[in-house]
Amino acid sequence: MRIARFSIDGNVAFGAVEGEGPDGLVLDIIKGIPYAEFELSGTKVPLNKVRLLPPVLPNKVVAIGRNYAEHAAELGNEVPDVPVAFFKPTTSVIGSGDAIEYPSFSNELHHEAELAVVIGRMCREVPRERVKDVIFGYTCANDVTARDAQKREKQWARAKGFDTSCPLGPWVETDLDPHDLTIQATVNGEQRQLGRTSDMIRSIEDLVVHITEAMTLLPGDVILTGTPAGVGPLHVGDEVAVTIEGIGTLTNKVIKRG
Amino acid sequence: MRIARFSIDGNVAFGAVEGEGPDGLVLDIIKGIPYAEFELSGTKVPLNKVRLLPPVLPNKVVAIGRNYAEHAAELGNEVPDVPVAFFKPTTSVIGSGDAIEYPSFSNELHHEAELAVVIGRMCREVPRERVKDVIFGYTCANDVTARDAQKREKQWARAKGFDTSCPLGPWVETDLDPHDLTIQATVNGEQRQLGRTSDMIRSIEDLVVHITEAMTLLPGDVILTGTPAGVGPLHVGDEVAVTIEGIGTLTNKVIKRG
Repeated sequence: MRIARFSIDGNVAFGAVEGEGPDGLVLDIIKGIPYAEFELSGTKVPLNKVRLLPPVLPNKVVAIGRNYAEHAAELGNEVPDVPVAFFKPTTSVIGSGDAIEYPSFSNELHHEAELAVVIGRMCREVPRERVKDVIFGYTCANDVTARDAQKREKQWARAKGFDTSCPLGPWVETDLDPHDLTIQATVNGEQRQLGRTSDMIRSIEDLVVHITEAMTLLPGDVILTGTPAGVGPLHVGDEVAVTIEGIGTLTNKVIKRG
Repeated sequence: MRIARFSIDGNVAFGAVEGEGPDGLVLDIIKGIPYAEFELSGTKVPLNKVRLLPPVLPNKVVAIGRNYAEHAAELGNEVPDVPVAFFKPTTSVIGSGDAIEYPSFSNELHHEAELAVVIGRMCREVPRERVKDVIFGYTCANDVTARDAQKREKQWARAKGFDTSCPLGPWVETDLDPHDLTIQATVNGEQRQLGRTSDMIRSIEDLVVHITEAMTLLPGDVILTGTPAGVGPLHVGDEVAVTIEGIGTLTNKVIKRG
């Protein structure tokens, strides 16, 4: 099932995405909370009449750096011995269709297409064989990065945590085998990144074990699993799209911070 | 005013701390939200009858590394050109009296006594002269760190973000000039850290400007301002106390994660 979060006429709701084609999609409004028990109301609204919101409200976003060998190499980095884990704050999260605001402290903004794992259950110290039980679904993410600030500042709170630096969407796909999917980024329709999730150095299972060895994850928390090769610049006016096989496309325009 | 958050008989409330002495303190229960409009109810409960909770519910905790020259030197680090900013997740926050759980992935847990700034208003791109207007108050923090993991892992999400790694408390002091206060840490009553907030390399004003250049801060968000020299090991069974002049003492025991 594909679960979107959206606003219409000032109301916010979750809905199950049904139908086909750019103009044929409808949202069946969900009663209840997707992570717990819920049912479909049968009340449907056309997707093109709503504003999509970030499909989850994470308590935290844990992101992983350098998880594809070709990407580590393109930035001159070695594959790390242990996963490089950092946080993106909730204030950085936006949905598909929202604008990425070019930060004032950077002149080198980069896209990073990533598969995002959405957690469905409160969990800690998850054994490898139970990882599948704590995952609610998957969505597309763009780990937007101020590359110059990332190089200058030893920890990445500003470089990867500025407002609008974490587009998530368009929706969460709950029925998906995430282990061998194409993941791509285009800028203004031109392909920039293309990879397969099977090329991750640490698997989703590895990452959930590694993260939950240290900290509790809550329903709606998100893990960004790293970006394949091909990262590159974004400029004001660009439209960047992250597409993952079996999920959909997350699209955002870059604007000047106003 | 000193504002604590506490639970009693399963209810959670904010209260203004009044009275004197370890057994003379009472909490005047607050009606409303401390960051917005509130009044004192006049209903008072003895402090020693409640369980203190973290005095704020942050959306995010932004912490600053290497902000005291002597501390940077003691770990063999240079004073950075730009502040080193990182996040501690909300799942790491505990209150005074709560236990620090020794993480399974570390053999070198360290205390780091820090002045914590509590934000009172949603803000972004705060000009230096307006910083005082967005600050709600100050509390004590312990930026508990798995030093070995910090050295091994390039970003510090696990080393400084594991569950219980962010003790905050005992309460928020709203009437305080934070610019020249003694800050100390003791372990089992023995002094380990002693510094003055006047020795910060970047002032509170610098830090708020730097952070909000990139991201929105929300009411209840917390900034940890760095630790003075004298960091050192914590072991299971230790009691660590952070005392800041004009605020009070944040006390936590270290236990084995159960």
